[in-house]
Amino acid sequence: MAINLELVGKKSEPIIHKYAWRDVVLYALGIGANTDELDFLFEMGDLKVFPTFAVVPSFKALVQATSNLNVNPMMILHGEQTVILHNPIPPEGEMSTVSEVTGIYDKGKAALVVVKAETSIDGSPVFDNIFTIFARGEGGFGGDRGPEALKADPPAGNPPDFRVEYKTLAQQALLYRLSGDTNPLHASPQFAAMGGFERPILHGLCTYGHAGRAVLHSVCGGDPARFKSFAARFASVVFPGDTIVTEGWRERAGRYIVRASTQDGKTVLSNSVAEVVE
Amino acid sequence: MAINLELVGKKSEPIIHKYAWRDVVLYALGIGANTDELDFLFEMGDLKVFPTFAVVPSFKALVQATSNLNVNPMMILHGEQTVILHNPIPPEGEMSTVSEVTGIYDKGKAALVVVKAETSIDGSPVFDNIFTIFARGEGGFGGDRGPEALKADPPAGNPPDFRVEYKTLAQQALLYRLSGDTNPLHASPQFAAMGGFERPILHGLCTYGHAGRAVLHSVCGGDPARFKSFAARFASVVFPGDTIVTEGWRERAGRYIVRASTQDGKTVLSNSVAEVVE
Repeated sequence: MAINLELVGKKSEPIIHKYAWRDVVLYALGIGANTDELDFLFEMGDLKVFPTFAVVPSFKALVQATSNLNVNPMMILHGEQTVILHNPIPPEGEMSTVSEVTGIYDKGKAALVVVKAETSIDGSPVFDNIFTIFARGEGGFGGDRGPEALKADPPAGNPPDFRVEYKTLAQQALLYRLSGDTNPLHASPQFAAMGGFERPILHGLCTYGHAGRAVLHSVCGGDPARFKSFAARFASVVFPGDTIVTEGWRERAGRYIVRASTQDGKTVLSNSVAEVVE
Repeated sequence: MAINLELVGKKSEPIIHKYAWRDVVLYALGIGANTDELDFLFEMGDLKVFPTFAVVPSFKALVQATSNLNVNPMMILHGEQTVILHNPIPPEGEMSTVSEVTGIYDKGKAALVVVKAETSIDGSPVFDNIFTIFARGEGGFGGDRGPEALKADPPAGNPPDFRVEYKTLAQQALLYRLSGDTNPLHASPQFAAMGGFERPILHGLCTYGHAGRAVLHSVCGGDPARFKSFAARFASVVFPGDTIVTEGWRERAGRYIVRASTQDGKTVLSNSVAEVVE
């Protein structure tokens, strides 16, 4: 069973996602929002939506695009993620997503699959997602290595311009998965072992959500309209219960190099960049 | 505006509640279940359902039954709660609930309203709920004081037969309310202040769920089929972040007197009785 290279370049039919405030709040709790962030958790008044919620309505599109890859889902790891916001996300609505596998690259041990998903409401673009996933054990098919990944290293020796610590819950992955990614790797010790992990790991996108939340509060004044894009590379896994430390270095106006690490100093998001309106 | 005494004795139309495993897991997380309780949190395999989930499908019936009371929802407090299980709750399905306000009693400062709700699947009884709520400021209408409340004191001087501590999350009420009871008293400092509280309080039924969970694990071996009923009186409020300590004294085979308190020794569930199959 080899990876299905014929998926490249085919656009999906529009995938509809209806959601309501409960989904928005569930996601916010899933990425660790707490009682001092009621704007994102309490539906009366103007409920704000975390910009990284963008990954939720397009998740079905990702699943659909990758389900025909012919790979073992336990062997899939999320490599990189980019969200580009065109407009703030409303607290409820119906969205349409069209996705496309834009490339399948040969990284030797793994195949790297890039999926682009564009999401709109009534024809107006709201956000785009670029999902990059590794299918472990599926490389070596003689394909192109693909474009080089984004390089964005914090400036050596400079202290970060912001630094935020979020302690995750032991049940963080169990909560996050209710937002749609129910891969058992994040819940079951048995499935985690099949994936080569000592215990269930946090979703990469849950880590990503924590980091995006830190960016939003640190340099956007908590205003989702000022959060323009967030590109991140998943460098290592986070275990539920870990503390996610997000740091940012202002590269120039509106652009921050971001790094997230765990309490033991292990980098979990590297080569990451957030673009914001300052 | 006086409390509407004419509601007594009228049965509701059947209220339909459809639910799926996500609702069951969301509730389990809402009452504090954690990674060592995967049977209740992971949907692959035989997902178990906490018996106190019974309060969720019948909540709409409670809301409907009380919405015509003509009382300020900020002034409503849950007084007592009984769940009686006829059969284990399936992890998904469609349930039908018929409710009835069985009495409105005059307790002086408050009116006490008793709502009974019977829930079935395809005509087979699954569980009954008896909700007792206080409408503060609505007593003094010259009505009957009603039957005496259940008395069930722990035997003086005897240590409990079980004792379980569960620390609640700061965001516990924000999580629990996604299971249906979105009263803003449990989320918003402003609404909490209107209700006379210094900050948002945990739902009484969230406390109740924690205590029921402690009973289930302590004397039912974690088997929902062995949990027959749980009657509890809400003696005081729990704040999110508090630790709920549940203790039980075996009165006789299959019957435990239960008390829940917070870390500072304040009793929050008193006069409570669990019936189980030993």
